[in-house]
Amino acid sequence: MKDVMSINYLAQCPSMECLDHGYVKLVDCMPRSIPDDEDSVDYAIAEAARCSYQRGTKTIADDKTLIRYLMRHQHTSPFEMIEFKFHMKLPIFVARQIIRTRTASLNELSGRYSEMPEEFYIPEDGDFRIQSISNIQGSCGHLDKEKEEEIKTNIQDISQKSFFIYKDHLDYGLCREQARIVLPLNTYTEWYWKIDLHNLLHFLDLRCDSHAQKETREYANAILALITPIVPWTIEAWEDYSPYRGGMMLTRQEVKAIKDMFLAHFRSDKCEYAAEDIKVKNLLEQKEWKEKAVRLGFKS
Amino acid sequence: MKDVMSINYLAQCPSMECLDHGYVKLVDCMPRSIPDDEDSVDYAIAEAARCSYQRGTKTIADDKTLIRYLMRHQHTSPFEMIEFKFHMKLPIFVARQIIRTRTASLNELSGRYSEMPEEFYIPEDGDFRIQSISNIQGSCGHLDKEKEEEIKTNIQDISQKSFFIYKDHLDYGLCREQARIVLPLNTYTEWYWKIDLHNLLHFLDLRCDSHAQKETREYANAILALITPIVPWTIEAWEDYSPYRGGMMLTRQEVKAIKDMFLAHFRSDKCEYAAEDIKVKNLLEQKEWKEKAVRLGFKS
Amino acid sequence: MKDVMSINYLAQCPSMECLDHGYVKLVDCMPRSIPDDEDSVDYAIAEAARCSYQRGTKTIADDKTLIRYLMRHQHTSPFEMIEFKFHMKLPIFVARQIIRTRTASLNELSGRYSEMPEEFYIPEDGDFRIQSISNIQGSCGHLDKEKEEEIKTNIQDISQKSFFIYKDHLDYGLCREQARIVLPLNTYTEWYWKIDLHNLLHFLDLRCDSHAQKETREYANAILALITPIVPWTIEAWEDYSPYRGGMMLTRQEVKAIKDMFLAHFRSDKCEYAAEDIKVKNLLEQKEWKEKAVRLGFKS
Amino acid sequence: MKDVMSINYLAQCPSMECLDHGYVKLVDCMPRSIPDDEDSVDYAIAEAARCSYQRGTKTIADDKTLIRYLMRHQHTSPFEMIEFKFHMKLPIFVARQIIRTRTASLNELSGRYSEMPEEFYIPEDGDFRIQSISNIQGSCGHLDKEKEEEIKTNIQDISQKSFFIYKDHLDYGLCREQARIVLPLNTYTEWYWKIDLHNLLHFLDLRCDSHAQKETREYANAILALITPIVPWTIEAWEDYSPYRGGMMLTRQEVKAIKDMFLAHFRSDKCEYAAEDIKVKNLLEQKEWKEKAVRLGFKS
Repeated sequence: MKDVMSINYLAQCPSMECLDHGYVKLVDCMPRSIPDDEDSVDYAIAEAARCSYQRGTKTIADDKTLIRYLMRHQHTSPFEMIEFKFHMKLPIFVARQIIRTRTASLNELSGRYSEMPEEFYIPEDGDFRIQSISNIQGSCGHLDKEKEEEIKTNIQDISQKSFFIYKDHLDYGLCREQARIVLPLNTYTEWYWKIDLHNLLHFLDLRCDSHAQKETREYANAILALITPIVPWTIEAWEDYSPYRGGMMLTRQEVKAIKDMFLAHFRSDKCEYAAEDIKVKNLLEQKEWKEKAVRLGFKS
Repeated sequence: MKDVMSINYLAQCPSMECLDHGYVKLVDCMPRSIPDDEDSVDYAIAEAARCSYQRGTKTIADDKTLIRYLMRHQHTSPFEMIEFKFHMKLPIFVARQIIRTRTASLNELSGRYSEMPEEFYIPEDGDFRIQSISNIQGSCGHLDKEKEEEIKTNIQDISQKSFFIYKDHLDYGLCREQARIVLPLNTYTEWYWKIDLHNLLHFLDLRCDSHAQKETREYANAILALITPIVPWTIEAWEDYSPYRGGMMLTRQEVKAIKDMFLAHFRSDKCEYAAEDIKVKNLLEQKEWKEKAVRLGFKS
Repeated sequence: MKDVMSINYLAQCPSMECLDHGYVKLVDCMPRSIPDDEDSVDYAIAEAARCSYQRGTKTIADDKTLIRYLMRHQHTSPFEMIEFKFHMKLPIFVARQIIRTRTASLNELSGRYSEMPEEFYIPEDGDFRIQSISNIQGSCGHLDKEKEEEIKTNIQDISQKSFFIYKDHLDYGLCREQARIVLPLNTYTEWYWKIDLHNLLHFLDLRCDSHAQKETREYANAILALITPIVPWTIEAWEDYSPYRGGMMLTRQEVKAIKDMFLAHFRSDKCEYAAEDIKVKNLLEQKEWKEKAVRLGFKS
Repeated sequence: MKDVMSINYLAQCPSMECLDHGYVKLVDCMPRSIPDDEDSVDYAIAEAARCSYQRGTKTIADDKTLIRYLMRHQHTSPFEMIEFKFHMKLPIFVARQIIRTRTASLNELSGRYSEMPEEFYIPEDGDFRIQSISNIQGSCGHLDKEKEEEIKTNIQDISQKSFFIYKDHLDYGLCREQARIVLPLNTYTEWYWKIDLHNLLHFLDLRCDSHAQKETREYANAILALITPIVPWTIEAWEDYSPYRGGMMLTRQEVKAIKDMFLAHFRSDKCEYAAEDIKVKNLLEQKEWKEKAVRLGFKS
């Protein structure tokens, strides 16, 4: 048995810095110990899945093929068998987004029990973003140097003032639970966050995406970097299939638009080879592609 | 205010028969009462979503466009605001599949408290299916008349015998919780099942699909028929986007295969018009299609 | 059929004010319509429970007795059949506590999409609480008038300043998602919150309790007031049994301490009557009390 | 770092036999590796809890005291930080009860993919139980030898016949998903079952209890035996506090009945010492006992 946390890539402390004072640390994972003949935690996904498919069935070639199949067909339960525990330090406004992922376990620093440490997030130079007009929730481009300088100073000032008042009120004897209400949303908090791989991939779908707030994306990307060496085949499949990554979701209307165009412009003898030309060795994926190609108007 | 359950299409008892003795009844939904100027429960999805998007933002044209947007972009929480409660009678082997949808509330007939009624499922003539070789979990084609007759008789006989022994053992004074262990998986049970619309759509994805067991699909299709008149815009969007319905999921490799083919065979001046040719009036959907079309190798 | 929301006690808008600018509104419940011969939504709990207990069993006297039985014995699933939807306006620090109740559906005002309204919570005069020493998460007593005045002014000033900077930054073109990070935790947000009765009772256990932060308790008490006329029997049972309300949880050691004292000081002939003296008419509750009384050293 | 699964008590395969052919195997736990100066996985519960209570607070003496405090006050989230994965073989009627614990991850042997192995549960001699009249869901006493013999033979016969028909139908080419519907509820299935400690304790509350079906209780007790050496302090606290174990829940009426009796029969000078006499060294537990004792009518 090998300890996953001490194999090669994790020899150094598996931790990633985020923003100006934050971090994500991978505290633990399950399975933690893997058999000597396995290279990654992926094996435990296949092991659980094979419980369902064991007897009287055609052998499914290998673990990697099985994992790709499970992910393509949304057989999500085997991915729930893998669990990760993180220790994170993050601004409250980021924490408020991440907590919307409900299927996770959480222990957060409590401002009722503890005095909040004086640490707050200031965007770094060159990262003060302009409100996008077309994308109501997003940003586009960056403010000019001068405005940035002024805004940055404002944020620093108001954050420090808020903390000053917070501490002053604590000194006055005001209870912590009331004193904290003046702290700004960029105050850092910390928590233990435990989540299974299935729910984590859904989190990464949403939060690594370009529509996610950049600050939150930094945490999602750190998490992705930390787990990739632990479940490499799962992450490869996710990168290939998720419509938030390399995959694409077509609507009924889009399927029809492509098909119409093919029918209008293509000579059917030219389409033929394409059905074989998908660059995976996996037979099942090739077969599924052919079915889609037919729906898209390719010659079968 | 109108009572959703008494508007036109639901004037008759909103109930669907399934298999030989089963059924799905729509007992209640939330919202149950809708404003006089609304035609369907869809309004409550938009109402909840607008709580997030209200001030300082461009007006999103209308409820239907908003609902389509929410579904395309997996903003799933507003769909959780709608709740359905069903009363179902179903064979135990079907119940065992449906219960895998965990995010639902359930009260099932208990064989420890109650005597199980003598009702069991027998497949109807012409529906005795052959084990598929290629699809390890599926069936293909039907057994011939003669074999079917024999199998049907066997199922009837063994089911009746099992119930006979069950009742005999109850008469002997054996506790219900032990007596029931001889009952076969085709025994009918019943339950109340309450689930929100987001989780129900995921259930319908999996269980209306051709890969689902036909007997379970019958229940899923009954549920779909019951809710369609209540949330018609949501169902229309789901039919258009779900890769289990009219939509399609492309893998990274498939996106590349299509793109390669376009580049090899298309004269770019012919591709142009296609980007406008998607048959939806919705501007945002047209815009999203253009982005995908570019990724697929169309001329931008 | 009667509309629950329009019966007597709810004729006026079912809404409660909380803190200085907040509120809880009961938007909807399920069931919304109840049969003419029912007085409350409690009936639907019994209806679901009877699905489990129907045939071959002794009749359970009436709905109220059944509901009390279900709650005493943690048969929680029938309580999940009732659903409530609230619209709430609340400070962010309160929202951060309530969101820890994960089994609920939520649509919150988004500071990425919308400009946050300039409303913040200031504790009212006489409610500036002193940090408790013995209870590390709590408060005890109130600050004197002078300190209170100063703290109140501080909170008002820093909140206004923060909002001023927030708006200034929006005017500069800074994106909303970054501009909001200076807003303090007492900023009001709003949301739709939908939860079933079982999970709501657990929430009320924790948040109506004297250990909950007073500001959050105000919301919990408002919710309790709103639902009590809708499920009166359930709330009565909860008041009688919950160890957070009228009930009491004894540890193994406490059971032994009581028993030891009884054995040491009581003449057994005096204990006898007590076993009958519990003030409920319900036979099953009397029987359960006798069993506990024996464990506590009463004469059986 | 030590491997929890290889420390002393688990040196032998951590597996327990259940019923005639079933078992529970502890496959993995999280944390799996514990620091050299820790004896059990309990440390990780305290570690997560201390994240909430760290700064500006009185030191909480030691991990064990903290764990007892967390459990008494339903601070359940730190217990979610511990995860267990089991491999179980169990009859379908037991599986149908256990699956009602929804907050768990599951991969079950599928009768659609795999041929079900011919293994079924027969109660052992002396364990054929009589239906209880007073307890509608329970049993009391055992059937006499003669009846038992006959019932046992019946169960064996009908189970074997059902399997014979099942296999016969498979040979006819009937698809597995239809062939299995004749199999009885005592057929063995198997699954991987992963659950966190908080949800597992709730499961153990319900399923180790005397009201649970005896066959299911056997699995619950096996699980309890397997995890006790891994989280001994947690289990000790649970045994002391859970009203399903050594603890006791009193209703409002029962609290009053005890108080009335004390007031009527006790000379107050005799009650006094009792408040100190609870047999725990823990000061906080003593303090909480005093508060309860006052509510029960003891002299404070």
